[in-house]
Amino acid sequence: MEALLHQSKGVCPFLKKTSPATLRSLSTSTRQSPGGGTITNLQFIARRCPVMNKALAVQSARINSRRSYGNVAAGTGVVKSLLEKKLHTSAEKKASVDTNLFRPPQPAPPPQAVKNAVQKPDTYAGPRPSAPPAPRFDYEGFYNNELDKKHKDKSYRYFNNINRLAKEFPRAHMAAKDERVTVWCSNDYLGMGRNKHVLKTMHDTLDMYGAGAGGTRNISGHNKHAVELEKTLADLHGKEGALVFSSCYVANDATLATLGSKLPDCVILSDSMNHASMIQGIRHSGAKKMVFKHNDLADLETKLASLPPEQPKIIAFESVYSMCGSIAPIEAICDLADKYGAITFLDEVHAVGMYGPRGAGVAEHLDYDTYADPDRTKESQRGTVMDRIDIITGTLGKAYGCVGGYIAGSASLVDTIRSLAPGFIFTTSLPPATMAGARAAIEYQAVYQGDRRLQQLHTRALKDDLTARGIPVIPNPSHIVPLLVGDAETAKKASDMLLNDYDIYVQSINYPTVPRGEERLRITPTPGHTSELRAELIDALENVWNRLNIKRVKDWEAQGGFVGVGVKDAAPVESLWTDAQLESAAQSLVAEPLAQQASEARALPIAAAAA
Amino acid sequence: MEALLHQSKGVCPFLKKTSPATLRSLSTSTRQSPGGGTITNLQFIARRCPVMNKALAVQSARINSRRSYGNVAAGTGVVKSLLEKKLHTSAEKKASVDTNLFRPPQPAPPPQAVKNAVQKPDTYAGPRPSAPPAPRFDYEGFYNNELDKKHKDKSYRYFNNINRLAKEFPRAHMAAKDERVTVWCSNDYLGMGRNKHVLKTMHDTLDMYGAGAGGTRNISGHNKHAVELEKTLADLHGKEGALVFSSCYVANDATLATLGSKLPDCVILSDSMNHASMIQGIRHSGAKKMVFKHNDLADLETKLASLPPEQPKIIAFESVYSMCGSIAPIEAICDLADKYGAITFLDEVHAVGMYGPRGAGVAEHLDYDTYADPDRTKESQRGTVMDRIDIITGTLGKAYGCVGGYIAGSASLVDTIRSLAPGFIFTTSLPPATMAGARAAIEYQAVYQGDRRLQQLHTRALKDDLTARGIPVIPNPSHIVPLLVGDAETAKKASDMLLNDYDIYVQSINYPTVPRGEERLRITPTPGHTSELRAELIDALENVWNRLNIKRVKDWEAQGGFVGVGVKDAAPVESLWTDAQLESAAQSLVAEPLAQQASEARALPIAAAAA
Repeated sequence: MEALLHQSKGVCPFLKKTSPATLRSLSTSTRQSPGGGTITNLQFIARRCPVMNKALAVQSARINSRRSYGNVAAGTGVVKSLLEKKLHTSAEKKASVDTNLFRPPQPAPPPQAVKNAVQKPDTYAGPRPSAPPAPRFDYEGFYNNELDKKHKDKSYRYFNNINRLAKEFPRAHMAAKDERVTVWCSNDYLGMGRNKHVLKTMHDTLDMYGAGAGGTRNISGHNKHAVELEKTLADLHGKEGALVFSSCYVANDATLATLGSKLPDCVILSDSMNHASMIQGIRHSGAKKMVFKHNDLADLETKLASLPPEQPKIIAFESVYSMCGSIAPIEAICDLADKYGAITFLDEVHAVGMYGPRGAGVAEHLDYDTYADPDRTKESQRGTVMDRIDIITGTLGKAYGCVGGYIAGSASLVDTIRSLAPGFIFTTSLPPATMAGARAAIEYQAVYQGDRRLQQLHTRALKDDLTARGIPVIPNPSHIVPLLVGDAETAKKASDMLLNDYDIYVQSINYPTVPRGEERLRITPTPGHTSELRAELIDALENVWNRLNIKRVKDWEAQGGFVGVGVKDAAPVESLWTDAQLESAAQSLVAEPLAQQASEARALPIAAAAA
Repeated sequence: MEALLHQSKGVCPFLKKTSPATLRSLSTSTRQSPGGGTITNLQFIARRCPVMNKALAVQSARINSRRSYGNVAAGTGVVKSLLEKKLHTSAEKKASVDTNLFRPPQPAPPPQAVKNAVQKPDTYAGPRPSAPPAPRFDYEGFYNNELDKKHKDKSYRYFNNINRLAKEFPRAHMAAKDERVTVWCSNDYLGMGRNKHVLKTMHDTLDMYGAGAGGTRNISGHNKHAVELEKTLADLHGKEGALVFSSCYVANDATLATLGSKLPDCVILSDSMNHASMIQGIRHSGAKKMVFKHNDLADLETKLASLPPEQPKIIAFESVYSMCGSIAPIEAICDLADKYGAITFLDEVHAVGMYGPRGAGVAEHLDYDTYADPDRTKESQRGTVMDRIDIITGTLGKAYGCVGGYIAGSASLVDTIRSLAPGFIFTTSLPPATMAGARAAIEYQAVYQGDRRLQQLHTRALKDDLTARGIPVIPNPSHIVPLLVGDAETAKKASDMLLNDYDIYVQSINYPTVPRGEERLRITPTPGHTSELRAELIDALENVWNRLNIKRVKDWEAQGGFVGVGVKDAAPVESLWTDAQLESAAQSLVAEPLAQQASEARALPIAAAAA
């Protein structure tokens, strides 16, 4: 066999030059044979070749007995040998890809390369091929190879089928409808996804205005829901304007890409832990990028000082960094921006709804009393941290429970992005019901402190309980509860064990979302995570930590501490929500927030003071 | 005054070095004066300067009389003169920007630069400034300048407030709820946005699963709605897998950017009229791009032939080009792809739901009988045009009436994009109700031919009526009815006149969406546009064409023809939907499609034949 193969390759320019991929394609695609049966395209070509024709005759007796080997290379013995030699890796790995939870169970896939066989007469002159097929890049082999790499480095992602139940929040069913789990890692931080005002608004809007917007903002997709939502968002952040996008990923990407490419010689200074959407936006802008160390003012200032003061520059950063829960020194960054002539771009995606007396985010929270004051004026808001930020971006898909993203800023800035950003211009608007629902959520949270207060109390209690057990919480001042595991495989095992054995869903967070070695479980309590559910979680985590022998705080301490865990004599990390603020929030609670009425009124409560 | 200005600049290093932007900022931001009143920050600084202090005293009498000139530079006379000299353009243009419909009416905006004034103690030592502020790029001036350019070249966009009413389709209300218009330019081509099965599915899903998905696909945002929708989409297009994105803009951008950047030395061959999302995706990929002339096979082949056969290459194109209605020679492009070892990336955004016996798009339509056959098998689908396409992208936001986009292709391709594309990975999933509603729409259209058939009949009738009147329809084989106007200002006037005088909404399409000189009105009939509405539209267009003296077919003919209009002895453009196919579709109609039942059944009707 091998001898024949070598002999064939030696004399056949076709076999010598044709890629294994093309050979495989030809050997797996079929056509009618002159005798009425089915033959592969390779056989069809080969029968016209004096050498291959002979080889086929010699091998014909063996073909049938070898067909059962696999589903890829069952064409001719010659070709199969070729493939086994050259394509062993990617061909064999097919099986492991098939275990992918994502791929729906299906009958054996049709051979990818059938298209090569069914050539049309105008490019394929007559039944007899005039020339052997050209070599072709092995696209499928390439994809499989990329997937293999993800499997090998354990970064391949298996999605969990989680169906969050509005009436049983925070519980969900799995693929089977009767299989319940408690979700401890959703970004629906406040349970607004099942808030009755939001849902009622969405139902009403669906009935009146239908399922979709029907066009881009420029072509029949602009409507009162967009106008009202953007007005609400501008008022929430105390800005002149706001602009809604499909998502905050798109908002960040489109805004940074547009500003970075349009502002002459723009430099973008980017926190090292910035979200992928900002990283992409900066890359797409083509602007010069300077990455400063996470939350490191000295490093940021050094980089700012290295640039001419009149050069346009954008400091891009987040308020709450979602994977570790750290919070940026926003006010000090504003000071540096002023000093060096930069503008500030602040992503409040994980903070809107969660911080500030009206839920406008961390920037608002830093002037809590100013914004909690019902008698505040535009004047009294001047110079607050939120007022000083040039561009705020946020999401409607996390604490506000819906989907979509936005920017808020000066009227000219917003109008510029509206006019220039392809990612805004050339896409269908969000559905009216989504925009109306999001607005209802924002207005509800603007007048009701109860949800975010309870969320904070649950976060504190959980962090305290975990710390008491020695389960390592990465310290931070926010609502995120990251548990350090420190190994990708163990983190996934812990997540799977929680799900399978304890009916608790906490996603493991691995590279590239966090650096290697810092793998973790990321827990996000909500107002619905009562003390009973918390007790269940703590017990489950205790068991999982024991069963998998995951390091506890004392183990990290023995190693000298890591990412803030087990660091000797570390200053305690204070929660951003102070006791006094939680108390003040409790005082302001009303029995039932009248957000629905508010959304109908002309003078919005969140805008009232700004008027 | 001028003498004083020059004298001041000559002796004052501060004035000489400080940018006009900073001066303007300082002159428009205010603080408490020692005497209790309000002074600008520039005055505050200037009073400490021996030269400026003197100048201020000299000018003080004139200040009040000059304050009323404008709202920007009213600080000191000296500064005002400076600004008038240097910043005349952008300062004066403020007023025109204020006419922007988009910007909500508000009280005078707060001065942008107030943040510079309210410096915090740690960077601003004491009340006396230790050094003059550094020069700073004039960001606001830059934005205003960009907007000015858009105003000047008439590409500035004014959005129309259009609220499409589900129960009065295709009518909508404007900003005022009782002001009705007929919408003739929505991309809700089939009225699925108000389809009762879609709405019922969405209502039920909202109640059961809430408003939002609550996370990315990897972190609690993956659910049965995503699984089922992607299965439905894969079956619709006869592919192994599908992947849902926030929009098809994101799907195109993310997929092309990922493939183009990952495939080694990839070249992307792109039709010259491709949508912005593909252009962005190709740009973001960093891959080599070769643009071929619109639908020009010879040009495409020349470019393909110039590349080594084994080099990875993607041919990216659309089935229906939405602004002119042209349709790509898909089968011949597949032939070229095979011949030169390329893969095909086909955007069916404006075709899904509209073409093919199951609404899978133009690629399906080209093998109409195969896919209309209820007894078709996987074997019988082999080698069809749709089967030969490697990657199909589509939207859930046009003919399917919802929002969102997707790709469909081989399992490995889809899994690769799922695993590598940041635009997929790092964004919140579409809401369950959106995904469920979209799936209901796809399944409804897969078993019901009535809507797209009626849409085609209405399109034919409208094109015939317009042609009979000599109103210039750009000829095309699709459902798009583009009326050639040929001038940006006239096109906008025509659109405004239709809206204001005839209660008909047809958006004008100007540069950069179409080339300059090819400005048009783009009309999209739906099944809901009855003959009465059509008669109203024709009458209104007659009047508008007369009132604005817009060219008719004979005028274009006299000029030798343009973009297909008035071309002598041109071959007639046949509709893609043949008479026989429309007849066949009529035969297949059932009284009431049982799409709702279908969506509950395990064996989906659209998948049944593929099993």
